[in-house]
Amino acid sequence: MNIILLSGGSGKRLWPLSNDIRSKQFIKIFKKQDGTYESMLQRVYRQIREVDVDAKVTVATSRAQISAIHNQLGEEVCISPEPCRRDTFPAMALAAAHLTDIQGIDPEESVVVCPVDPYVEKDYFEALKELFCQARKGEANLVLLGMAPTYPSEKYGYIIPEKEGRISFVKTFKEKPGTEKAKEYIAQGALWNGGIFACKLKYLLQKAHELMEFKDYEDLYEKYETVTKISFDYAVAEKEPRIQVMRFAGEWKDIGTWNTMTEAMEEAVVGKGMMAETCEGVHIVNEMDVPVLAMGLRDVVISASPEGILVADKEQSSYMKPYVDRIDQQIMFAEKSWGSYRVLDVEKGSMTIKVTLHAGSSMNYHSHKNRDEIWTVIEGAGRTIVDGMEQNIKAGDVITMSAGCRHTVIAETQLKLIEVQIGEAISVQDKEKHVLE
Amino acid sequence: MNIILLSGGSGKRLWPLSNDIRSKQFIKIFKKQDGTYESMLQRVYRQIREVDVDAKVTVATSRAQISAIHNQLGEEVCISPEPCRRDTFPAMALAAAHLTDIQGIDPEESVVVCPVDPYVEKDYFEALKELFCQARKGEANLVLLGMAPTYPSEKYGYIIPEKEGRISFVKTFKEKPGTEKAKEYIAQGALWNGGIFACKLKYLLQKAHELMEFKDYEDLYEKYETVTKISFDYAVAEKEPRIQVMRFAGEWKDIGTWNTMTEAMEEAVVGKGMMAETCEGVHIVNEMDVPVLAMGLRDVVISASPEGILVADKEQSSYMKPYVDRIDQQIMFAEKSWGSYRVLDVEKGSMTIKVTLHAGSSMNYHSHKNRDEIWTVIEGAGRTIVDGMEQNIKAGDVITMSAGCRHTVIAETQLKLIEVQIGEAISVQDKEKHVLE
Repeated sequence: MNIILLSGGSGKRLWPLSNDIRSKQFIKIFKKQDGTYESMLQRVYRQIREVDVDAKVTVATSRAQISAIHNQLGEEVCISPEPCRRDTFPAMALAAAHLTDIQGIDPEESVVVCPVDPYVEKDYFEALKELFCQARKGEANLVLLGMAPTYPSEKYGYIIPEKEGRISFVKTFKEKPGTEKAKEYIAQGALWNGGIFACKLKYLLQKAHELMEFKDYEDLYEKYETVTKISFDYAVAEKEPRIQVMRFAGEWKDIGTWNTMTEAMEEAVVGKGMMAETCEGVHIVNEMDVPVLAMGLRDVVISASPEGILVADKEQSSYMKPYVDRIDQQIMFAEKSWGSYRVLDVEKGSMTIKVTLHAGSSMNYHSHKNRDEIWTVIEGAGRTIVDGMEQNIKAGDVITMSAGCRHTVIAETQLKLIEVQIGEAISVQDKEKHVLE
Repeated sequence: MNIILLSGGSGKRLWPLSNDIRSKQFIKIFKKQDGTYESMLQRVYRQIREVDVDAKVTVATSRAQISAIHNQLGEEVCISPEPCRRDTFPAMALAAAHLTDIQGIDPEESVVVCPVDPYVEKDYFEALKELFCQARKGEANLVLLGMAPTYPSEKYGYIIPEKEGRISFVKTFKEKPGTEKAKEYIAQGALWNGGIFACKLKYLLQKAHELMEFKDYEDLYEKYETVTKISFDYAVAEKEPRIQVMRFAGEWKDIGTWNTMTEAMEEAVVGKGMMAETCEGVHIVNEMDVPVLAMGLRDVVISASPEGILVADKEQSSYMKPYVDRIDQQIMFAEKSWGSYRVLDVEKGSMTIKVTLHAGSSMNYHSHKNRDEIWTVIEGAGRTIVDGMEQNIKAGDVITMSAGCRHTVIAETQLKLIEVQIGEAISVQDKEKHVLE
């Protein structure tokens, strides 16, 4: 099966675990059998492999997420990067062109397109395989996965099938309705539209060419900024007459808020946390090194990360966006392709961060205009290159780099260092990349 | 007026703001008119000066608190240090001997003794002055301040006066009663015993000599560890026949739990915090650099510090001790006479801390057996002495010290540095002091 995973943008509804650069799909919150934790992205990627070892997975995402995806899925994962955000249809078109023009997949082949962040079990991916095969048959141009509704939600669009049965042609689409309307639709046998579908690659490309002028993948990538924002539902699905829907009644959770997130969590406490017996329906998700103690609470979610601390009634947590938007704070934690960093201390004229590099990885060769940097190695071994001079490093070594000086570090083992930045205008933008000669 | 402030031991009932080394009286939580915050200790010390500029204040405390007291009250404050904890009476006796033998105060003079941590207003200190004068008169050997009870508390001992009126001889003492008994006592005109009293210094010393064998201050200090633990109420007050009580009906709060602490707070939010309109009766006390967001909560206290995060129903917070006792974590923050430090990062073979020195102050000249240290100066100017070699330092300078190497730093301005400790057995105990030649 060919599958395009749409890895969506940043969201703040799972703050403080999600922020401007860490989208919810990267939060490691789901316990694996070995006791470690995986993210929604890692979980979905693993589940696909379990159902179809040969699945060709392409992650369609913004450039900002590339590092984090490589960090979580390894260097081999295939990524179709969007130069900028242009809604779902251009992203799908670009990914489809990536599959045919870059990966050399036959346009006659089918592809499954789905979001990267549903909380699902194995049966969902079995259904995707079926969807893929159904699209191959060519009875319809498009085959949607229709979710059996569990309540009259106002969050989803509804698909009205022509008849009962596992697979049916679609009669009509209904926009997100009010609760009363939703009840009517459900009585008529309507299904939720979860944005999951399969079709032939050539169909997706043909629709793309009808709406956008481009020759091939590279051309579309170049022009991407000039393309009009448009959603797949609006551009294609709602206009297509030959469209089928396949019912899916298995578990499928859209984890967009703390309320739904905690429902999907197996444990009440992730990270360091203690809960008094007087607590009921409380979840603690703590990414800090210090403990959380909860007493006498009911239906509350507590989450702490280097970005901040949330304590919210679970229902109320859905309304956090306007509050989180008011928080004007620098990024305190980030995953990069080479490892991760965490801000430890911020002062007016300095910033102290902890940098962790994976074994075998290295930073870009770079320099800063407005700050000096001092590295103190606290763990591991590797090499630094500073203004062309190479040097072996180990725990306890100190490397000082004045502003303008070019530098990088190469990790032989896992390498950790404390970086002290000194300067009056410290900014992540102050970075110039250089070619290492 | 002469006044001995009893600065009590560590308590965990205000965790995470109080811990093994920071007692509740050091928490800076009360807003001053200039917008900055002061601790209970600073507040009481300031209030005494406002009522009596010439008051001779002596703080009786354990050695562990000396640095924090100097940090908060300055170097001039007079401290009577207890070599170890021996309950209230030996502490008072030692402090009384300090007043006569070290400070040269006439034993015929009176002294007021009171805990350092009540939340009170100016009228309380006016009452202490009156208490002091009443003791001077010598009508009784001991004059207690009796608090007008506001409810039948089980937390206090009760004093039954012989008659009504502002000052009366005491008929009898009652141990902490049940609620029903407390109601009876209150109906009889009983007063709470808050552990506040005045007497002549010679009386306190005479009682001390009756119970403990010692010659003078230095002798008692030397023998302090061998002295029996005994409370003042039990050793003296409850046995003294010539004892008066003075009524006090002003504000007096015993701030021992989060519940009472939040009652005394003027603001709902101290530190970075946001509260949704759906919160009611919520207090946030945040000592971290990142924000707290509270939503949809009722009668909850949230407190975050480098030690941990508490989220508790206010009533339930009184029962936190067994939970906090289970937390086995190193000290993450401490105030020292020269400034303060905060742990930023802990790894297996390293620890990173931020050190802040007050202008003009310096550390001891010391060395460590089992760790190397690297200082990176991030703010200010001063000097280091490393193995006898003196060097001027400023922001951006790096000083490396191998295990065994003797070192200190002298701050000319306020000085901040990042200290990276590298070693396999990092411990606060690994410290040897040396004489600087």
